[in-house]
Amino acid sequence: MTDRLNVCIIGSGNWATTIARNVGNNVARSQLLEPKVNMYVYEEYIDGRKLTDIINTTHINVKYMPDYVLPSNVVAYDDVVATARDADILIFAIPPTFVNSCCKTLLGKVKPMAHAVSLIKGFEHGDDGQIILISHLIMRQLKISCSVLVGCNLAHELANNHFAEGTIGCRDQKHMRILHDLFQSETFRCVVTDDADCVEICSTLRNVIAFGAGLADGMDLNENTKASIIRRGFLETLQFVDVFYPGSRLATFFESCGLSDLVTSCYANRNRKLAEAFVKTGKPLSELEHMLIVGHEPLGPITAEMVNIMLKKKGLEEKFPLFTVIYRICAGIYPLSRLLETLRFAREDIYHPNHIFQL
Amino acid sequence: MTDRLNVCIIGSGNWATTIARNVGNNVARSQLLEPKVNMYVYEEYIDGRKLTDIINTTHINVKYMPDYVLPSNVVAYDDVVATARDADILIFAIPPTFVNSCCKTLLGKVKPMAHAVSLIKGFEHGDDGQIILISHLIMRQLKISCSVLVGCNLAHELANNHFAEGTIGCRDQKHMRILHDLFQSETFRCVVTDDADCVEICSTLRNVIAFGAGLADGMDLNENTKASIIRRGFLETLQFVDVFYPGSRLATFFESCGLSDLVTSCYANRNRKLAEAFVKTGKPLSELEHMLIVGHEPLGPITAEMVNIMLKKKGLEEKFPLFTVIYRICAGIYPLSRLLETLRFAREDIYHPNHIFQL
Repeated sequence: MTDRLNVCIIGSGNWATTIARNVGNNVARSQLLEPKVNMYVYEEYIDGRKLTDIINTTHINVKYMPDYVLPSNVVAYDDVVATARDADILIFAIPPTFVNSCCKTLLGKVKPMAHAVSLIKGFEHGDDGQIILISHLIMRQLKISCSVLVGCNLAHELANNHFAEGTIGCRDQKHMRILHDLFQSETFRCVVTDDADCVEICSTLRNVIAFGAGLADGMDLNENTKASIIRRGFLETLQFVDVFYPGSRLATFFESCGLSDLVTSCYANRNRKLAEAFVKTGKPLSELEHMLIVGHEPLGPITAEMVNIMLKKKGLEEKFPLFTVIYRICAGIYPLSRLLETLRFAREDIYHPNHIFQL
Repeated sequence: MTDRLNVCIIGSGNWATTIARNVGNNVARSQLLEPKVNMYVYEEYIDGRKLTDIINTTHINVKYMPDYVLPSNVVAYDDVVATARDADILIFAIPPTFVNSCCKTLLGKVKPMAHAVSLIKGFEHGDDGQIILISHLIMRQLKISCSVLVGCNLAHELANNHFAEGTIGCRDQKHMRILHDLFQSETFRCVVTDDADCVEICSTLRNVIAFGAGLADGMDLNENTKASIIRRGFLETLQFVDVFYPGSRLATFFESCGLSDLVTSCYANRNRKLAEAFVKTGKPLSELEHMLIVGHEPLGPITAEMVNIMLKKKGLEEKFPLFTVIYRICAGIYPLSRLLETLRFAREDIYHPNHIFQL
């Protein structure tokens, strides 16, 4: 018996594999954590061999991260229950569409006081059209608390030891330090806040704004226009959080999950690219989405639609002119030219942060 | 006799000429403003003809904006006193180094209740090494109040009717509306705030951060690193304003003068380019500055130096790790590698906006 906390990773895509390197190295050094990390791998056969066997003998995830070696204390399993049974900390890094079924399989099979951490980009669609945050879904399905780690959109940058920042939205005070030490590395700087909803929703909304920035790029609008989209998108994010996730703190928007991820997304993310192609090719979004998006990054257009459903229900479309115009352009309700018109004419004095957060 | 306000422009460079188009068109439509706008032009001979004569006959500033026609109600003068004598609103758009002498010439020759507006990018060097804002200098020298217009770094974008935003920091309540109407056009959206110091200093500090972003570009660091520089630069700007210009409002940082100008500068400004060349060529800054900088955009390195003098005096260098490391790299005190080390290791929890602005 030991008091050390046991950590497992559920998922084996490139983000899961990248983070497994940090986690594997960190637990090996820790006095507080078990040195072995179980990793649930969706079983596949690669040239006739099981992927789990390949990982456990070569320590290379040949399917998703063939150029990187995993620490040998990360052990692959093809059974999610066996992976998670003894875990005190369950790191979820699977596509958002698999969360429901995965939680159903695990329900009642994990330690009752286990703590989950979602690394999942995306959200679930509520019956009423509202966004359901993935961490909320995990908490509801698995009956345990769930934190989030957001930031560093680009797994290969982290894998290549380029500098990146992450934000941990921690829902359990006593895990704050341990989660920080679990993920941080020399090149991946993590900051922990308890404002978990805000961390997660910021990371979702930025895809809408990045799509807007991509529309501007597609129309060959100038740098000032793009900067205006970023600025107003940031303000609408503040306002959105204030309406739908009240009690959040302004400081959270200045973490990596807020300002940094937004800026990076508006210059380098796939939603930006998708929007640019949408304008330049004139093809329908449904066609381009398949062409451009690899992996499971949530799409700006569907996010914009769900955001719009939430705004419409509260009669708030006019108070979110940027989110609204991006949705309407995606939906074919507005022509592209309305984007610039909105920047030129839409009122914005209604949502200054001084008002919202009562500075 | 008339109650209409008389407007003049002091300066004839490309920014002065660009804004003269907006001002000329706006006064012509206004019930409150005199339809004629005097413009002070530093006299030069172009192919044997006076520049003022060319402007007044062809309405083209052949020297600085040869591709654009000025409204015919903008009239060029070569005598600054004659230009400004009857003005109620004096728009200053001259290089910062000429402000002192220009104000000396004008002292006692302008209407005692005249109001100045500075469009000047840059600052003056105080005897004690502190930054003196140009609007403060004008107020001190000319004994009249002075507002500022900041934003849209790129005169040619405005001239080409691309979308841009500007922020007016207005020091006189009764001029708020009139200044807005004087500068705004269909493609140039202006927002007025009374937080003039903050507007002006944001516009200065962004050159330091853009220089930092350029260092990262020069070292071929990744998008996440640049986003981190923007994020931390933004936070240090908040903190700097809180220390040196207390009483400013958080909302101001979300105007164009804050977030938009910062982002644009970190992707497109000349300080970014200067820093990139500094890293890639290994040449001393003094050599590159002449090569790269056209016009009078204030330089990141000299700004960083003055910022550092101000911080050092208050013993605050450690609390501004990004500003400090950029200065020290410029000054040759630190090697380039310290930039990334600072991002990785420097504490930042000391300057969260929640603390600074006591949200």
